[in-house]
Amino acid sequence: MSTSELRPFFEPEGVAIVGAPRNIGFGYGIPPMLKSHGWTERIRLVNPVGGELHGLPVYKSVAEVPDPVDLAVVLVPAAAVPGVLDEIGRRGIGNAVVESAGFAEIGDEGRALQDEGARVARTHGIRVIGPNCVGVVNTANRFSTVEIIEEAFTPGPVSIIAQSGVFGNVMLDMLHEFKLYVAKAVTLGDRMDVNECDILEYLIEDDSTGVVMMYLEGAADGKRLRRVLKRASRVKPVLVLKSGRTGAGKAATASHTGSLSGEDGLYDALFSQTGTMRAATLEDLVEMARVFSTQPAPKGNKLGIVTSSGSLGVMATDTAVSNGLVLPRLSDETMKKVAKEAPTWMNVKNPLDVGPSAQFATALKALLGDPGIDMVLAVTIIPYAVFRELMDMGMKGSAWFGDIAGLKEAAPDKPLAVCAVGHGDFVKHMTEVAGPDVPVYVSPEPTARALAALYRYWTWRNGEAEAGGVSA
Amino acid sequence: MSTSELRPFFEPEGVAIVGAPRNIGFGYGIPPMLKSHGWTERIRLVNPVGGELHGLPVYKSVAEVPDPVDLAVVLVPAAAVPGVLDEIGRRGIGNAVVESAGFAEIGDEGRALQDEGARVARTHGIRVIGPNCVGVVNTANRFSTVEIIEEAFTPGPVSIIAQSGVFGNVMLDMLHEFKLYVAKAVTLGDRMDVNECDILEYLIEDDSTGVVMMYLEGAADGKRLRRVLKRASRVKPVLVLKSGRTGAGKAATASHTGSLSGEDGLYDALFSQTGTMRAATLEDLVEMARVFSTQPAPKGNKLGIVTSSGSLGVMATDTAVSNGLVLPRLSDETMKKVAKEAPTWMNVKNPLDVGPSAQFATALKALLGDPGIDMVLAVTIIPYAVFRELMDMGMKGSAWFGDIAGLKEAAPDKPLAVCAVGHGDFVKHMTEVAGPDVPVYVSPEPTARALAALYRYWTWRNGEAEAGGVSA
Repeated sequence: MSTSELRPFFEPEGVAIVGAPRNIGFGYGIPPMLKSHGWTERIRLVNPVGGELHGLPVYKSVAEVPDPVDLAVVLVPAAAVPGVLDEIGRRGIGNAVVESAGFAEIGDEGRALQDEGARVARTHGIRVIGPNCVGVVNTANRFSTVEIIEEAFTPGPVSIIAQSGVFGNVMLDMLHEFKLYVAKAVTLGDRMDVNECDILEYLIEDDSTGVVMMYLEGAADGKRLRRVLKRASRVKPVLVLKSGRTGAGKAATASHTGSLSGEDGLYDALFSQTGTMRAATLEDLVEMARVFSTQPAPKGNKLGIVTSSGSLGVMATDTAVSNGLVLPRLSDETMKKVAKEAPTWMNVKNPLDVGPSAQFATALKALLGDPGIDMVLAVTIIPYAVFRELMDMGMKGSAWFGDIAGLKEAAPDKPLAVCAVGHGDFVKHMTEVAGPDVPVYVSPEPTARALAALYRYWTWRNGEAEAGGVSA
Repeated sequence: MSTSELRPFFEPEGVAIVGAPRNIGFGYGIPPMLKSHGWTERIRLVNPVGGELHGLPVYKSVAEVPDPVDLAVVLVPAAAVPGVLDEIGRRGIGNAVVESAGFAEIGDEGRALQDEGARVARTHGIRVIGPNCVGVVNTANRFSTVEIIEEAFTPGPVSIIAQSGVFGNVMLDMLHEFKLYVAKAVTLGDRMDVNECDILEYLIEDDSTGVVMMYLEGAADGKRLRRVLKRASRVKPVLVLKSGRTGAGKAATASHTGSLSGEDGLYDALFSQTGTMRAATLEDLVEMARVFSTQPAPKGNKLGIVTSSGSLGVMATDTAVSNGLVLPRLSDETMKKVAKEAPTWMNVKNPLDVGPSAQFATALKALLGDPGIDMVLAVTIIPYAVFRELMDMGMKGSAWFGDIAGLKEAAPDKPLAVCAVGHGDFVKHMTEVAGPDVPVYVSPEPTARALAALYRYWTWRNGEAEAGGVSA
């Protein structure tokens, strides 16, 4: 299959919205949203009732839709889907997003209907995303087959593949709150035709995609997934949340997107062999994405930690070391830089606990400049009552913890992640101090886990590159 | 030791603040804070300079401080601490909080100073909290030896024991954001005298304490800790975050609060034998506390899950089952209640995925009323664009997901936890719908983990009760 076959899903010339609802409910808001995004001239509504809707003419059948039209968004009831796909094929439309539910996920009857739809699609050579999904989002041209909030249209390097429509939708609702911005998002649903491998292949070649986040319940084709994941991981990180780990979870996936989630151990092996980063939880997926979408490749696994709290430094150390990082001795030069103005109670070592001294910025800068340190984790913490007093006196977090955004800019090649624990307003303030290129976490363990994942990924990728990328 | 010896730490009749700073910096804000909390008549400032400070007279020595005074808060430099403890003893003050740093945590010299202080304290029979700590908070009488934000003084059932002062302080800064409110908080620092066992014993008998959250780097006395934890866990849950799991982490604790963090496997055994709930991470500690401080004992491990997202239902199921819970078949009556109005695509089973149907409230109520279900986990999720439309039409989350607070009130004996994933405003809204007695998590896995921990704790506690509580 050529990935160009999928282009109309993301960059359609004209879109027929088949079964455009006349009443408020699922799908009603799609035409107004597309209108507000500048798509007025390129959308055609289809509904047998005809007339007008959202200020646009309504065509009574797909056959009547004028050119150009290369994508259909299907919102009709399940039973009508095979017939509608036939009309789409006859009209010469090559791509369809079927959002209707009531297929493989509801059992044998729905599966038969899905098979019938797939047969019709194949006859006409139509590529189909869905059914039981919300389709596609492309932030670059503000095209979307699902109503999502404005914030989700901020373009960024993250692309999403989700089996579940609701899940994909809700990810788009929340990611911007973590400064994660999206290039493309696809929800696959019951996978009548297009599956995660097809989309991954498309995203490999998509320059706007820097990181892929994937939610998978079960692979449509395990062997192909292995090949495609390996090819993808060689050029961009793929982070996967795979559910259905347990028997009960697996049973639940069958009735959700009609997929068999398979043996979990096999997936673990598949992911680790292909450089795919498996997330343990939904939070883990988001936390990894934040470091992968902002930080460069680390040179090695040597982590430097600077902290204003001994306890949280210990927690970060425990997690980092448990996940394959090491905390080397600091270089003499770094030690000298920090010790010069350090109070007597400060131990200049790694993790570097500067406590309530004013040495945080000096220490952070020294770690970022230390050639023996490959990555830096900064734990910024201060009692909020103290912080508020400093703020009242006109100070900023950057006066205490350093101009983190600026320090990062001066050391762009060294991964840096910040952990800010405490009052919500403090965390928010530190997120500003850290700027757009440094992720700020609210707990030490995920900060360390994310950096460790970054190291593991690049170790795999560099290994592949050295092997000439010829291994199967 | 009698726990009554510790009472002046929490309920002093009069407090001498020794070394009250004349300039802005650590400790400067303590007298004004105590004044604003109604302690004006019960605090005495001590500083050799004398004069007046914060509108209060300053006594030149501890000896001059008038009655009543049964607690001293010590803010003098480390080297002066043994001498000050001697003055405190001579003045007949029985309790001291030493906040000064520069003791065991900085190495041999500091340790010698600490030993000297301990010797002086023993001579006079003074009980000492610290050094290198921020002491004590009691929300009931608004007494505190540390400046913390007003929100942290909202009384609640959670008491905190933290080795690290900063850590304890920052916990107080953030817990209220999770609707976790505090009874008492103690930071132990370098443990010259009072250790976690002493405080635990005090909290066992403290009626205002319902749940203990503890951060530990290393046990001061392993054997005693085992006895005290077991005694504590029999009457109230103790949640522990123990750091220093790894070699590097252990090395870091030594220079932080001067403790040896010991072998991690031994701690695992110690905690599981004593019914102590060990948190894996800082987030885990907070997440457990939320369910332990609000939910009753479950009758068993049979979990019912209702969800508006299949994917998140699967994630919750995976985590629940991996952590010892089971998802039983729903009773015929529950199935009937839900199936009556369910659309054809809905599978009435457990986890119960109601999708975008209007059946969430019916399903939640049915699960709460099903005698075969011991605990309920509700995953509320809805695309934010849809939610915002409903809100604009005057609906509330309760119209869609049920009056969760009211349903809980009607079923007070069944643990319930909610997971709301998505846009921050949606999560906030659902937190209100859930009311004060139902915790709302932002991810399915921690929700399931917290309920599983609740089950594990009560299994241990009921087992102890059946055994007559006579086992050592």
